Amino acid sequence: MSLFTITTNCLLSLLGGFVSLKLIQEYIPIFIQRGHYGNDQCKVSNAPIPEPMGVITAAVYLIIMFIFIPFPFLEWTYTERLFPHDKFLAFLSAIISICTAILLGFADDMLDLRWRHKLLFPTLSSLPVLMVYYVQGSSTTIVVPKIARSIVSFLGFEMTTSLDINLLYYVFMGMVIVFCTNSINIYAGINGLEVGQSLVIASSITLYNVIQLYRLQDPIECYYNWLSIYFLLPFITTSLILYNFNKYPARVFVGDTYCYWAGMTLAVVAILGHFSKTAMLFFIPQAFNFIYSTPQLFHLVPCPRHRLPKFDSKTDTVGMSFAEFKKSELNRFGQWVVTILSTIGLLFKEDFNNDGEKWIRLNNFTVINLVLKFVGPVREGTLTKLLLLLQVFSSILAFIIRFFLARILYDVVL
Amino acid sequence: MSLFTITTNCLLSLLGGFVSLKLIQEYIPIFIQRGHYGNDQCKVSNAPIPEPMGVITAAVYLIIMFIFIPFPFLEWTYTERLFPHDKFLAFLSAIISICTAILLGFADDMLDLRWRHKLLFPTLSSLPVLMVYYVQGSSTTIVVPKIARSIVSFLGFEMTTSLDINLLYYVFMGMVIVFCTNSINIYAGINGLEVGQSLVIASSITLYNVIQLYRLQDPIECYYNWLSIYFLLPFITTSLILYNFNKYPARVFVGDTYCYWAGMTLAVVAILGHFSKTAMLFFIPQAFNFIYSTPQLFHLVPCPRHRLPKFDSKTDTVGMSFAEFKKSELNRFGQWVVTILSTIGLLFKEDFNNDGEKWIRLNNFTVINLVLKFVGPVREGTLTKLLLLLQVFSSILAFIIRFFLARILYDVVL
Repeated sequence: MSLFTITTNCLLSLLGGFVSLKLIQEYIPIFIQRGHYGNDQCKVSNAPIPEPMGVITAAVYLIIMFIFIPFPFLEWTYTERLFPHDKFLAFLSAIISICTAILLGFADDMLDLRWRHKLLFPTLSSLPVLMVYYVQGSSTTIVVPKIARSIVSFLGFEMTTSLDINLLYYVFMGMVIVFCTNSINIYAGINGLEVGQSLVIASSITLYNVIQLYRLQDPIECYYNWLSIYFLLPFITTSLILYNFNKYPARVFVGDTYCYWAGMTLAVVAILGHFSKTAMLFFIPQAFNFIYSTPQLFHLVPCPRHRLPKFDSKTDTVGMSFAEFKKSELNRFGQWVVTILSTIGLLFKEDFNNDGEKWIRLNNFTVINLVLKFVGPVREGTLTKLLLLLQVFSSILAFIIRFFLARILYDVVL
Repeated sequence: MSLFTITTNCLLSLLGGFVSLKLIQEYIPIFIQRGHYGNDQCKVSNAPIPEPMGVITAAVYLIIMFIFIPFPFLEWTYTERLFPHDKFLAFLSAIISICTAILLGFADDMLDLRWRHKLLFPTLSSLPVLMVYYVQGSSTTIVVPKIARSIVSFLGFEMTTSLDINLLYYVFMGMVIVFCTNSINIYAGINGLEVGQSLVIASSITLYNVIQLYRLQDPIECYYNWLSIYFLLPFITTSLILYNFNKYPARVFVGDTYCYWAGMTLAVVAILGHFSKTAMLFFIPQAFNFIYSTPQLFHLVPCPRHRLPKFDSKTDTVGMSFAEFKKSELNRFGQWVVTILSTIGLLFKEDFNNDGEKWIRLNNFTVINLVLKFVGPVREGTLTKLLLLLQVFSSILAFIIRFFLARILYDVVL
């Protein structure tokens, strides 16, 4: 009977992709006519590019999910002879978080919301998901790594193999949601990158779910992984269509709407699927990009308004973009960060004189610029491919950590 | 303990009103700067009016509801010693429908969606609410009026006092949702009318809930009425603030966002509160407006692009707007409609000659123009007040029908 639900899900996902294709084509002229477009700053031509097209695919996704939801419950009610209320709760809370994320993203695209409003909204809208997690009586226990226990017992204390961190676990999940919704939005700016990275992460999680379905026999564990697959397949098909329009050279822009939608979808499947720690492994480039960005985000180092790579119209390539400022503007902590990063090769640094004063030129602190530091000016399409390749490699690394390294660190690995 | 939840709800509702006030003031310049404004066609001045400001209050409402939801469950878990899954389902499904309605409205304001997309979305997004209704094992039985039973028994058949109409009941509820989300949107166009009518309806429903709480002792019936109150109070306070900005002379426009949000909120409380038939009584002016509009909506009578009342800048008043067309454009069915309506005084009709051909001039088929037919040109502020007064009278009528007339028609009235 599971076959029935997954077949329905696959068919609806394909339908979602098809409808997305048609609607994007239909709404491209409408967006432009209504003035919802941007200009591609890494192109010679100045043609208007409709934005945010992510709202169309997101709306299709929601509709597909609304149509899909009754099917697994037909199956469960049939096999379990009882309607599974808490599974229904999981589905509904996931839809709420995703829908509010789409609304937030779309409002941000249209109104340029303030940062404090943008951080508050996903935090609160994820409350239902966390409540459902609580109501399901889900575990807030983490397994303690062997090495930590060895250290503790070496110090003369006893420690159990697992530790219930309770409320802290909810704080962690809340942070997962805020991190996911924002990290894709920050790691963005060149054609195809937002959708591309989301596709790689979503496919990796789906692969992980399939592996777990083969490995584990426990019906609850299997349900968690099915739940994730049900939410991800329509996401993947609709995103694939959008990627086709957004890849270099972009015919549409996806907007913050897409980034929030994608981030929230990935976050809720991770939480409701009970594999949030594993899911974080697939966000290594995003996490690195966030950490690498902090010196500029927290203004230890001056931050220009835009940190996109610099376009050279003569060669049709993109290269590093720079932050240039007087050396005296840098406080001591900022100096340390710059010295350390440039010493280990993770920062381009150049001193120069301007009007008799000492100035400094640094590449902007994003992974995009960091990659450009190594591969020099390249065509934008090539850059996207390189970054997506990096994402694929980090997914492979994540699988290695999850399934091989974890055995060394822990006694039990689910 | 119910006191605890309702106190929290009241406090959060007040907070919601306060935050709405601050945010509307904060976002008015942002809307204008980003080009999201309209011009008031019934004013001498051509100042830009920010639109759709409804999205701000709707977002505040959602946030207030997210914060509120845990409280009743604290209470219920405490008193019932068990977490009430199906009550949580009701809350979540309501939030989903409301959130998707807001998203739809906002997208419509921004993108001018096509009609077929606008009808499909609320229908599908209300599926979770209907599923929850089904899962709760709620009744799909209607009580048969005495008179119908008398007729049937007169014909020699037996008929029970109640009839299970099953699937038809779900069709009815789906229609309630589509009707509510669209009827406010259609009965709109002058300062303060959208918010004003929603406030009258929401207050009437709240009053109905309070009356029922006094009359009924059954805990489930009481829960239904509390549920409705919990969703309506924050709606009323945030809408009141918005009304203050939107009333004549309007400083903000509320947009389709507000109309869809208001309509869906009223529809879901009616369904999940199990009083959808009573709730429909509070929509009498909207229903009449819809029925009265049908000749133009279905193009039996030519329909101009805008049917707003006509502004006279010399006297600063609004009067009827007209549809003018050649008499030959009217088919036979259209002719009947025009003849009947103008005979019973519900339509202004004037014949005139133009270039030797017979033309006809009719007021546009909306309740706004119909009222103007009787009260002649008036100031816009006065017109809104008249229409809202009409709404209040129809609410009084609704209470009379519900609590007095129903006794005559039915044996049992809850």
